[in-house]
Amino acid sequence: MKISLERLIELALLEDIHTGDITTQAVVSDKCFATARLIAKESLVLAGVNVAEMVFRKLDPTVKFTVVIQEGTSAGKGDVIATIKGNASDLLMAERVALNLLQRMCGIATLTSRYVEAVSGTKVRIADTRKTTPGLREIEKYAVRIGGGINHRTGLYDGVLIKENHIAAAGSIAEAVRRARAYLPHTLKIEIEAETWSQVGEALSAGVDIIMLDNMDIDTMRDCVKLISGQALVEASGGVNLDTVRPIAETGVDIISIGSLTHSPRAMDISMLFD
Amino acid sequence: MKISLERLIELALLEDIHTGDITTQAVVSDKCFATARLIAKESLVLAGVNVAEMVFRKLDPTVKFTVVIQEGTSAGKGDVIATIKGNASDLLMAERVALNLLQRMCGIATLTSRYVEAVSGTKVRIADTRKTTPGLREIEKYAVRIGGGINHRTGLYDGVLIKENHIAAAGSIAEAVRRARAYLPHTLKIEIEAETWSQVGEALSAGVDIIMLDNMDIDTMRDCVKLISGQALVEASGGVNLDTVRPIAETGVDIISIGSLTHSPRAMDISMLFD
Amino acid sequence: MKISLERLIELALLEDIHTGDITTQAVVSDKCFATARLIAKESLVLAGVNVAEMVFRKLDPTVKFTVVIQEGTSAGKGDVIATIKGNASDLLMAERVALNLLQRMCGIATLTSRYVEAVSGTKVRIADTRKTTPGLREIEKYAVRIGGGINHRTGLYDGVLIKENHIAAAGSIAEAVRRARAYLPHTLKIEIEAETWSQVGEALSAGVDIIMLDNMDIDTMRDCVKLISGQALVEASGGVNLDTVRPIAETGVDIISIGSLTHSPRAMDISMLFD
Amino acid sequence: MKISLERLIELALLEDIHTGDITTQAVVSDKCFATARLIAKESLVLAGVNVAEMVFRKLDPTVKFTVVIQEGTSAGKGDVIATIKGNASDLLMAERVALNLLQRMCGIATLTSRYVEAVSGTKVRIADTRKTTPGLREIEKYAVRIGGGINHRTGLYDGVLIKENHIAAAGSIAEAVRRARAYLPHTLKIEIEAETWSQVGEALSAGVDIIMLDNMDIDTMRDCVKLISGQALVEASGGVNLDTVRPIAETGVDIISIGSLTHSPRAMDISMLFD
Amino acid sequence: MKISLERLIELALLEDIHTGDITTQAVVSDKCFATARLIAKESLVLAGVNVAEMVFRKLDPTVKFTVVIQEGTSAGKGDVIATIKGNASDLLMAERVALNLLQRMCGIATLTSRYVEAVSGTKVRIADTRKTTPGLREIEKYAVRIGGGINHRTGLYDGVLIKENHIAAAGSIAEAVRRARAYLPHTLKIEIEAETWSQVGEALSAGVDIIMLDNMDIDTMRDCVKLISGQALVEASGGVNLDTVRPIAETGVDIISIGSLTHSPRAMDISMLFD
Amino acid sequence: MKISLERLIELALLEDIHTGDITTQAVVSDKCFATARLIAKESLVLAGVNVAEMVFRKLDPTVKFTVVIQEGTSAGKGDVIATIKGNASDLLMAERVALNLLQRMCGIATLTSRYVEAVSGTKVRIADTRKTTPGLREIEKYAVRIGGGINHRTGLYDGVLIKENHIAAAGSIAEAVRRARAYLPHTLKIEIEAETWSQVGEALSAGVDIIMLDNMDIDTMRDCVKLISGQALVEASGGVNLDTVRPIAETGVDIISIGSLTHSPRAMDISMLFD
Repeated sequence: MKISLERLIELALLEDIHTGDITTQAVVSDKCFATARLIAKESLVLAGVNVAEMVFRKLDPTVKFTVVIQEGTSAGKGDVIATIKGNASDLLMAERVALNLLQRMCGIATLTSRYVEAVSGTKVRIADTRKTTPGLREIEKYAVRIGGGINHRTGLYDGVLIKENHIAAAGSIAEAVRRARAYLPHTLKIEIEAETWSQVGEALSAGVDIIMLDNMDIDTMRDCVKLISGQALVEASGGVNLDTVRPIAETGVDIISIGSLTHSPRAMDISMLFD
Repeated sequence: MKISLERLIELALLEDIHTGDITTQAVVSDKCFATARLIAKESLVLAGVNVAEMVFRKLDPTVKFTVVIQEGTSAGKGDVIATIKGNASDLLMAERVALNLLQRMCGIATLTSRYVEAVSGTKVRIADTRKTTPGLREIEKYAVRIGGGINHRTGLYDGVLIKENHIAAAGSIAEAVRRARAYLPHTLKIEIEAETWSQVGEALSAGVDIIMLDNMDIDTMRDCVKLISGQALVEASGGVNLDTVRPIAETGVDIISIGSLTHSPRAMDISMLFD
Repeated sequence: MKISLERLIELALLEDIHTGDITTQAVVSDKCFATARLIAKESLVLAGVNVAEMVFRKLDPTVKFTVVIQEGTSAGKGDVIATIKGNASDLLMAERVALNLLQRMCGIATLTSRYVEAVSGTKVRIADTRKTTPGLREIEKYAVRIGGGINHRTGLYDGVLIKENHIAAAGSIAEAVRRARAYLPHTLKIEIEAETWSQVGEALSAGVDIIMLDNMDIDTMRDCVKLISGQALVEASGGVNLDTVRPIAETGVDIISIGSLTHSPRAMDISMLFD
Repeated sequence: MKISLERLIELALLEDIHTGDITTQAVVSDKCFATARLIAKESLVLAGVNVAEMVFRKLDPTVKFTVVIQEGTSAGKGDVIATIKGNASDLLMAERVALNLLQRMCGIATLTSRYVEAVSGTKVRIADTRKTTPGLREIEKYAVRIGGGINHRTGLYDGVLIKENHIAAAGSIAEAVRRARAYLPHTLKIEIEAETWSQVGEALSAGVDIIMLDNMDIDTMRDCVKLISGQALVEASGGVNLDTVRPIAETGVDIISIGSLTHSPRAMDISMLFD
Repeated sequence: MKISLERLIELALLEDIHTGDITTQAVVSDKCFATARLIAKESLVLAGVNVAEMVFRKLDPTVKFTVVIQEGTSAGKGDVIATIKGNASDLLMAERVALNLLQRMCGIATLTSRYVEAVSGTKVRIADTRKTTPGLREIEKYAVRIGGGINHRTGLYDGVLIKENHIAAAGSIAEAVRRARAYLPHTLKIEIEAETWSQVGEALSAGVDIIMLDNMDIDTMRDCVKLISGQALVEASGGVNLDTVRPIAETGVDIISIGSLTHSPRAMDISMLFD
Repeated sequence: MKISLERLIELALLEDIHTGDITTQAVVSDKCFATARLIAKESLVLAGVNVAEMVFRKLDPTVKFTVVIQEGTSAGKGDVIATIKGNASDLLMAERVALNLLQRMCGIATLTSRYVEAVSGTKVRIADTRKTTPGLREIEKYAVRIGGGINHRTGLYDGVLIKENHIAAAGSIAEAVRRARAYLPHTLKIEIEAETWSQVGEALSAGVDIIMLDNMDIDTMRDCVKLISGQALVEASGGVNLDTVRPIAETGVDIISIGSLTHSPRAMDISMLFD
């Protein structure tokens, strides 16, 4: 939301500028105005242009920031994403922070969109994970949505995922699920991680809402989907890349969650050019 | 430093855990203890193991965290990086944040070390840029050092880099440098970005300390190095990848700065396994 | 979690003590030690004794705080809840903040337990709402659990509740539910507020997971429960007090949510007596 | 003051909205505008309408918020307190926080006004205590003033109240008062808590400015007032409720301080209705 | 209090060290231990030695800090104030912050003690003002107490001082005092600033508790003291220096408040020497 | 920069006003407007007028603040520095914080300008140190620049200064410099502190960029300057006052750094007068 985003942007600007942009203070008059353009240097799915705008506006509240390419659409190499008119010193000081955020968000949206395309025609939805950059989870998960994906739980607090270690601590899948149901808000579904066909069976007996097939091979996945046959949502996770995602999707799972969407996107190449 | 790192870790834990790890609270007794190991799932240069330790210690101040592989050394696939004994709930809650930080830091150190190897035998030093993740600059620049690189300026406040737009605002390279010298602490060197051979000449006349050759082809770079011939440090920047870094190094430049070290490292695959 | 609770306690202590407890500084030697007891002045369900301990420990890290009555159990008038040994000045300075938190948390747990008792023998579960004290939601919802209730969503971010205004904006219940399903994490159930029997029918057709019967009379509620007949969880809300809660429970709803648990509990009377 | 109030409101909004109002994001267009009214659902003394306005303005800086009933005056059941025009999503997101604050503040002002009425015709003034909600002391004490009460000290830092434990530590009332006078700013009066007639005598001899009669019965109070006869202000505290407050007032005390004004007000019923 | 002091120290360390002490990181092994002494380089009244200790302990929690000269006593040129054993890097990093705080606090205590000596034998007490360094008010007012002075109000919130502009806004001294009495906590005295003999008369009629004689010459002051003759406390303010303070004291005023105690103390010369 | 300055101002206002200016709230209507002037009560070099403006604007965003005397120029006794029109209560509440900042900043600029004048005609530049007030370093170093000085490193993080203890830890000057060069960003110069003529020789051999002559007598300084003869910048430090600064400058050093510029300036006398 706006308040947390503003705090992130203040933090980022303080990190980069701190006591001042000494080069700009020394060389550029603080009365000087400038016009600049944000240019895509490669094709990408745009995410974060409003975040970039907030960065510039934080330093120059009267900046004119005109969005040319809309959030969520594609930009080709050389396309102008936005134009910016404002105080030259403020533009120079905001540039790097704005680009660092925008390039990462576009990287995530673009990568997500490639996975979404790879499974097009199936019913599968592409989801993110908690493998995000500390401090940036909110905007990274937003970029996944912009890229056509859906969000898994935001953190440990808003979704239940019973993993191996939880099962071990509880003694059995049945007991772990029983404890979760007794404790949790009625508004949350219960998801469990299963590594084998027989664990899937136990999870079904326990009446879970979602079963995550963790690091299974394609054949086992297909068997598990058959066993579940609509009694729970099925999520596949582990070993997903652009080559494996379609075969996984074709096993009939509902959701494929992918950590690399947020932990290893390549930053898209975007420049700010002054006129 | 310790205080800023502790704040980052608190922020990251609050982001992930927020009001509580509902799965663990529901299923795992808060009296239960556990032992776990951090395992490298691929070969990597280790960076951030002490950061990971701080994450676990933040939740369980009595955790026993034993470092097995030393910071800055290589780990092979399957190697145990560290062992961790502590409260099971705290370990489960800290796991993702610790790994998110560690995997990114190892990614940066490993990538840096590959660039450093690629130029081995030359005098060139590999440097980072300000293209870092907002909020993580301090630990990302630390990981570059661990990988064998050096740090460029930390932000806009602790180094001078006169770029195209600064020169335009000042009217000429000579005037920009004159203004910088009059304004700046005597403890800082003055660096200027040059895009052509003639700009390099102007920069030399202005008496700058460092000249950055920005996005030049190899031949122009070589000519510029000759022209400069030791009167200033020479930094190459732009278009650097693992294929081009050696030829660039062989032009005789002193430093090669590379944005992708920090904006696009691949997170190293590291797992936490409970015994 | 621990980190957010520590911040709340720091905030509360700073609010009360600020630049110093001038009476204590003037009158009491800072070398003086004391023993005190927390005493229940009326019967109550204990919630927050560990929070109280954290308040004292924040000022005197070496305090000996011995819990006598366990969290979640009942204390009678005159019962000793805990004994505290530590620096006298620190005990005097922490007293009011510890009591302000403890008395409110016990108030919530005690009130919740009375509602839970009132519906005993039915399958109904008592839930809280978002009508909490700003800044205290986490500990207030914890106190509800201690009193035997369950938590509804923590905030707007971790649960879906489609209300009248959302339906109006979407045009129909069906469309609102469709939009929600397309957008939301697959881990969350979809809840809708219904004010009439026919809205309940529409909600069922739309396939929602939970239907909140909002401010209905007992007969309408009973009819709606019949109509739903297990196809969705049923939550009753509005006009609930200790007289009406049992009849509402007997309509067959699954959950009764009650704002006054957290917005209007009476603070339990607890004193700190020095020996 | 404005800055601390803005921080409280940011905190409250972050607590409720956090990463986003997922229902509203899913279902309501962020271009949609709406008009709403704040309605009193029971008679009350209005306090906090400007605080509510600040909450809405924080999310929608261009909101039109029109106060209909003035702060400090009474509203009857069904009265419109204010009208609000603004972005529909922002109104939905701000609603609960605005109401949580407003309902509590009105609860305090209304309760205070009932005590003030109960002693009307006497010279007694009704005062609050430090038994406030952690984090909300400033606005709760403001609501007491709006309800016609006065504020006792804000915290431990801006007023002196020598209690039993302070006297014990100092050895005697005389010594405690001597130490306080030597240490304290000359701008503060010295108040002491007395539980018996003879302690009141000692306090008078020590020359204190204010004597608090703590938990005394009516007859003892009347005797103490006679003994003091104008040599110090007299404050009554303990066991005050709407039945006992008038008899206490009639003993001739100057001030009656009441913890329940802030620790146990009932939240007033106020709704926000969209047109 | 401890919590606010710890925050100040964190802030000060972050300001100085920020991303790291690059000299020490480069040159000194982080395993190296050292012993150092804090030495007074001129005679001074010691204030803040515990603050200095907290600075060192913040970076090295196991530091051995031995206080040699007690807070509030005098140190001569060359005296060892404290000895410090700990991690050499941490000592080097903490040194400047510890000294910056200590030197300023000693400066204030020493200056205050000189004023206190200058009025010795009179009944006058030396007080500070709100002319403190932003962010340091708490420790500066503490240093005044250590130097033998007393504190005036801490801020605008804990004391009443009706000045010229307040009187103008209210229309008259009588009306200003009436408004203040109606509004304010009964625990606070009412102080008014008077610039003339006749204003003093009006203030007495209004029944104020304290009268500040603002920038009066000695003769007028003496006349005013006579007029007041014990009906209110008398504070002198304005134009006070070490030459004028005794004559002012001899007019019979009760308190002399002096802004330069905190706005213009000379930092005492203190060094940290490594063995 | 703007963001950090705004935080400082918020902190300062909260410190002074906290829960409210009780005098003004009691006595002055919050609808009342006023005009005031900032007046220099002695001659000074103006620094910080924009900071003062930000303080007033923080409380009254619509204030009209007209700068009469420009930053960096001299004001004579009685000169109007700025005029201020705005809400009377806000002006009264902001006054002290604005003056506390402005008086200190003018004190620093004025003192710096006296040193700059004292060395006029020489090539010497006057520099500050890290002996600043905790929390105010950024604005104090700014005031030094306004007074005609230059800034030494901001903190431990943006400049290298190898001192005695670093040399001792490394074993020799040569080794300390070698370590620094290997570790540090190429953008920073290396400075070393030398106390004797022979240390200067060693430093030259090690190839340092700047040599600080620490607490040397004039003759030794002159000899060292001769020895260095342009191979490094020369900074003099220690024992500098307005009497000694010119003789030191005439030894031929490049920079003279002076701690008292920031640790012991006298606050300039500035008043705010209401019309």
